[in-house]
Amino acid sequence: MKQISGIAASAGIAIATAYILEEPDYSFEKITDTDPAAEKERLETALEKAKADLAQIKEKAEVDLGEEEAAIFAAHLLVLSDPEFIGGMQAHIDNEKVNAESAVHDVSQTFISMFESMDNEYMKERAADIRDVSKRVLGYLLGIQMKSLAAIDEETIIIAKDLTPSDTAQLNPKFVKGFAADIGGRTSHSAIMARSMEIPAIVGTKEATSSIQNGDTIIIDGLEGVVIVQPDNETMQAYEQKKESYEQQKLEWAKLVNETTKTIDGHHVELAANIGTPDDLTGVINNGAEGIGLYRTEFLYMGRDQLPTEEEQYNAYKTVLERMEGKPVVIRTLDIGGDKELPYLELPKEMNPFLGFRAIRLCLEHQDIFRTQLRALLRASTFGNLKIMFPMIAALEELRQAKAILEEEKQNLLNEGQQVSDSIEVGMMVEIPSTAVIADLFAKEVDFFSVGTNDLIQYTMAADRMNEQVSYLYQPYHPAILRLVNMVIEAAHKEGKWAGMCGEMAGDEIAIPILLGLGLDEFSMSATSVLPARSQMAKLSKQELESFAKEMLMKNTSEEVQEAVKTRFGSL
Amino acid sequence: MKQISGIAASAGIAIATAYILEEPDYSFEKITDTDPAAEKERLETALEKAKADLAQIKEKAEVDLGEEEAAIFAAHLLVLSDPEFIGGMQAHIDNEKVNAESAVHDVSQTFISMFESMDNEYMKERAADIRDVSKRVLGYLLGIQMKSLAAIDEETIIIAKDLTPSDTAQLNPKFVKGFAADIGGRTSHSAIMARSMEIPAIVGTKEATSSIQNGDTIIIDGLEGVVIVQPDNETMQAYEQKKESYEQQKLEWAKLVNETTKTIDGHHVELAANIGTPDDLTGVINNGAEGIGLYRTEFLYMGRDQLPTEEEQYNAYKTVLERMEGKPVVIRTLDIGGDKELPYLELPKEMNPFLGFRAIRLCLEHQDIFRTQLRALLRASTFGNLKIMFPMIAALEELRQAKAILEEEKQNLLNEGQQVSDSIEVGMMVEIPSTAVIADLFAKEVDFFSVGTNDLIQYTMAADRMNEQVSYLYQPYHPAILRLVNMVIEAAHKEGKWAGMCGEMAGDEIAIPILLGLGLDEFSMSATSVLPARSQMAKLSKQELESFAKEMLMKNTSEEVQEAVKTRFGSL
Repeated sequence: MKQISGIAASAGIAIATAYILEEPDYSFEKITDTDPAAEKERLETALEKAKADLAQIKEKAEVDLGEEEAAIFAAHLLVLSDPEFIGGMQAHIDNEKVNAESAVHDVSQTFISMFESMDNEYMKERAADIRDVSKRVLGYLLGIQMKSLAAIDEETIIIAKDLTPSDTAQLNPKFVKGFAADIGGRTSHSAIMARSMEIPAIVGTKEATSSIQNGDTIIIDGLEGVVIVQPDNETMQAYEQKKESYEQQKLEWAKLVNETTKTIDGHHVELAANIGTPDDLTGVINNGAEGIGLYRTEFLYMGRDQLPTEEEQYNAYKTVLERMEGKPVVIRTLDIGGDKELPYLELPKEMNPFLGFRAIRLCLEHQDIFRTQLRALLRASTFGNLKIMFPMIAALEELRQAKAILEEEKQNLLNEGQQVSDSIEVGMMVEIPSTAVIADLFAKEVDFFSVGTNDLIQYTMAADRMNEQVSYLYQPYHPAILRLVNMVIEAAHKEGKWAGMCGEMAGDEIAIPILLGLGLDEFSMSATSVLPARSQMAKLSKQELESFAKEMLMKNTSEEVQEAVKTRFGSL
Repeated sequence: MKQISGIAASAGIAIATAYILEEPDYSFEKITDTDPAAEKERLETALEKAKADLAQIKEKAEVDLGEEEAAIFAAHLLVLSDPEFIGGMQAHIDNEKVNAESAVHDVSQTFISMFESMDNEYMKERAADIRDVSKRVLGYLLGIQMKSLAAIDEETIIIAKDLTPSDTAQLNPKFVKGFAADIGGRTSHSAIMARSMEIPAIVGTKEATSSIQNGDTIIIDGLEGVVIVQPDNETMQAYEQKKESYEQQKLEWAKLVNETTKTIDGHHVELAANIGTPDDLTGVINNGAEGIGLYRTEFLYMGRDQLPTEEEQYNAYKTVLERMEGKPVVIRTLDIGGDKELPYLELPKEMNPFLGFRAIRLCLEHQDIFRTQLRALLRASTFGNLKIMFPMIAALEELRQAKAILEEEKQNLLNEGQQVSDSIEVGMMVEIPSTAVIADLFAKEVDFFSVGTNDLIQYTMAADRMNEQVSYLYQPYHPAILRLVNMVIEAAHKEGKWAGMCGEMAGDEIAIPILLGLGLDEFSMSATSVLPARSQMAKLSKQELESFAKEMLMKNTSEEVQEAVKTRFGSL
């Protein structure tokens, strides 16, 4: 028996036999006296096959995983149609008379090295995309029979060095019970996909492929981030029990789908879900969310080569509002720029994109983009309970300007004879420290706040949440973060407004008792966290938590806060 | 008469005739059948001449401007000795049989393009360095008689597209009364040098070279950022008067050199200066600063190829402490990393260096570096009034760990029989929002705070202060910033500790009345701002400012705060 630790990427327990995903042999001989016309023909055929593959994978992913996760394959298809990339290969064949394999390899390598040398995570991911795509093309040129993961028809646990998004999208959860990968992090594409598919997964194990043999019995503990290889009987029994009780718990959670969220003492809070596209609504409804607390509209703008039209946006917003049947839907205006690029916008490169020209900053400057979105939102407003939210507000001037533009577009639409709801709430994200500190001033001019904890924490701590070397400073329970959240809630309530939260912290079981005690009104999280949160809240008393939460504001460190919560509520 | 606006880079008024700095013609013919040995010989000779030039410029700059400003030339000399750079040129001559001019041009261009394509201001500056250096080498190869700016012997105002650091260092302030450049910003090297040399300067005029002729009469208004070309009589008279009264004011300020800083109602604050190297002490003493509020020790580590030894550091710290004769000297431990790189440390590239692995974060990880510095500081402590300050503290754990290491090194030294002062105050920078928000908790564990406003503002507003597209968010008077500063001061006073400030804001005439009213105890600024600040404070009443300052905390926007200060104190 051997135990390997990694990063818990998707919750649950899986027990099955190992299936080692081996990398095919992509080696080839370089030839330098080819017939260029023939090689270009071979290249073309391989490219077409690769595109057909990807189109199919994309389609399957859209159905199984939703549009948000499938967007990566649209990006891969774009790479295969990139004139600079493909043209480079053709020119290489013409000039050097090399075989197509060499052309694909050399040109891809150039792009990969270029992207990898860049100071930017987004660009580094582009390198991974090119590597994924070029392997597929090379595979076709070399006549490699690519193993289809979709064909697996026995219960297995996949063990891989890395699972590419295209690998993950092909997994059939009926047979693939879990996976472990040597590399990857909690926010890598395959980890996100595993959570959507509800397959337990561990990433970043470093040594899974070198320690595990095909056919080994494997336990994946996606709750603790542990892989157990060839468990002894005792361990096996313990894990069968753990699996059973986790599944039991899931069944109990499932019973809460149609319940409202209430504490022991009858206090109601709104448990909402975050979505990226209308396709995510099925998960939201299946998990009994009481509303949408954050609709990230970025995905409408990504994986394409031009801005979405007003009509496209209108249709997306209308769909979401209609399917939510009058439940609150908070739609956040475009949060693009910085590390999230839109190739067709040609935004400037920045030294510190997280402190850069993004979201409302960009929208107030590029008002054509902003106004189109606002018009689409306003037109869709009559189909449900729409709340509009502005991201990255740092100063009151920005909020005032955004509201004035919204008002102008509303008047324009009314003048055109269009219908617009007259009860749209207008709110803002609180994700910049300055905004939390003067929340009392903002509260007079908005209908609601939603605290975006991912950004608020990274700015308040001055620590990039993507940078591993400072990840110890990503501390949701740092007393400064709790105090800022408290300031926001108090400021809102003083003006009779509501305060929500739409960062990861809202669904965190350590944070939930504190946030309840501070009086947070709305908790918005990933759909799969809604039922566990509802179950947890049903066991808590809001009134009892009030003084406890205030005590947490006076703790010295994040660790002291965690300990206090664990002491009070037992191991969470 | 014509008026051109730009960025005020160095204060004062200058009136003289224009001297257009023209760019020599660096064009040459590419030759591809040379004798490589002869061309390499030519290259070698040109490189040696360029190095000799630079060594001379560096030496002059060290004397005239101080080591901090001269460091750029050490960097240029390193470029000329870089084996990759020079070896590349030699290989190019060997392989392509080109002339030395082509080799210099082609290899430099490759490096320039590479650096310019990087997402990083620091790397982009490296491109400017290579351009500056390679032009000098090319000039020698082409036999261009380089105009020496040092030879100017008539009163002139230099008009240039760009003033390189090597140009600026050669200016003789006796004859060069000011300069205007088409490009550049307030923090470019030449702007910083102009302020050290007390030459009025305007940068970023965009059109100075295209609008001005050699011999035109020019007024440089370095207070307002305006260049006036061929002024009419009336304007000329007005500016002669403005110049006169500015010089009068400077004389008045000079009278305050030996005065202590006092408000009308007899309240004393400490007016200190920021320094980068012991060479800056002359300016500090000449401007009557009452102490050093920030000694940035980074420069000890920069422009060299290995870490400074304990002995080198000890000597630097001892010099500063001795020359300050018992006045307080706050020495900040190493703040390197992020955008400030040390080539010999091989720090990882980061996506958002301002939110990265720097300062105390790096020191707690690389404890050998940290401990060497602490030992040098402790050993120097007996030579004056030393206060040690830790930068970039975000969480209490970090402060505690840094203090524990300091205590260990103190014990080690005492065990070795070395002398260490037993009255060293230990404090910290407040430049991360989390720290300001829980300043009450920190105040129990430090002797003092110093607010670093440059960073505090950029993190609190989530806006990179170097990024022009979000520069409108760099708002020192934003009510959130004022409230955070207020929290820090109140927290310090509640525990009987003192609170200072060492960012640009401390010397800002709009901020000064507010900071005085909030009770700030120490103001540390560039040496040239000390006397104007002392003069301003002598006209203010601390007691009257207290309620005024509290009112400012409740203003809605930075603009409202500025207006209120201007209304109360007249045009500042």
